[in-house]
Amino acid sequence: MNDPLTRLIGEFARLPGIGKRTATRLAHHLLKVPLVEAKNLADSIVAVKERLINCSVCNAITEIDPCSLCTDPERDSTKLCVVEEPFNIHPMERTGEYTGRYHVLMGALSPQRGIGPKSLRISGLMNRLEGVEEVILATNPSVEGEATALYLARLLKAQGICVSRLAFGMPVGGDIEYTDEVTLARSLAGRREL
Amino acid sequence: MNDPLTRLIGEFARLPGIGKRTATRLAHHLLKVPLVEAKNLADSIVAVKERLINCSVCNAITEIDPCSLCTDPERDSTKLCVVEEPFNIHPMERTGEYTGRYHVLMGALSPQRGIGPKSLRISGLMNRLEGVEEVILATNPSVEGEATALYLARLLKAQGICVSRLAFGMPVGGDIEYTDEVTLARSLAGRREL
Repeated sequence: MNDPLTRLIGEFARLPGIGKRTATRLAHHLLKVPLVEAKNLADSIVAVKERLINCSVCNAITEIDPCSLCTDPERDSTKLCVVEEPFNIHPMERTGEYTGRYHVLMGALSPQRGIGPKSLRISGLMNRLEGVEEVILATNPSVEGEATALYLARLLKAQGICVSRLAFGMPVGGDIEYTDEVTLARSLAGRREL
Repeated sequence: MNDPLTRLIGEFARLPGIGKRTATRLAHHLLKVPLVEAKNLADSIVAVKERLINCSVCNAITEIDPCSLCTDPERDSTKLCVVEEPFNIHPMERTGEYTGRYHVLMGALSPQRGIGPKSLRISGLMNRLEGVEEVILATNPSVEGEATALYLARLLKAQGICVSRLAFGMPVGGDIEYTDEVTLARSLAGRREL
């Protein structure tokens, strides 16, 4: 009876974290909104695929290659921050504390999922070390992110580069009472003199 | 820097129940999937808006007017099931227990939100009563749904129509222990002799 609707529900349900019920709700919502609003969403989806590419230097998402982070003369080229995914750059930028360049690995080492060093953009990183004094490893505080950081640290130190890792510890606004013991142990190990 | 991405995140975040964080996750997911998959989603959105209409008889969502529920000669025209929204028809059909016709009100009475009888498709309902023996009020078990059912019951009874309401009670598979007192009271009031 309402085939386009069933198809849209199916397409929504393919998205990560969207179940059948949410997909149905979204589809029915779109049925109600003005046509122009639905078209805006559809156009945005296509635009993202057609207009955005990965920067050939740092792999960040960009409309112009190389991206503005790579070409901005104001940024500090002696510092390189290594992240797993393009969307990890935005949180770093939001801190307002980092003015160096970035390098996106496009993933993290994960033997279980068959992601080895060859699957990541590591050779691109090693080719960018000219003039770099410090590489900040900002991979995730997960098993995969840690393994990736340790692997890269070994490679980079062999090239005489200063390598640092983001600090582990209690989140600001957190509570010792509710901090898991692994985090608390790392927080203790990384304690700083006041 | 990545304007189409920001725009898509904004469009996703306009959808009900989708916050900024989920919108970001969905947008980045679409960046990764093949172009054809993203286009399928975009096309489905447009198709739903361009190809689906509300049935001029019952207000159900359909590609052909009147809809197949209204024109199917196998269905029982002496029974009419009144629901709030087009998507309420599907759950009724799934029971396999109802073979009559439907009428969608396109909402429920809600003085707080300024939805009075004039905002609902009530005149369409009153014009469809020829040959109808029973109207089943299948509005939601909410304050608005109840108010709507009571309002319609009065109108319909004045026309000599037999009016019924879906039963309230404990959900199948539920537990008395965890059933709220209002539901339990309704369940008790609606008890049936075995």
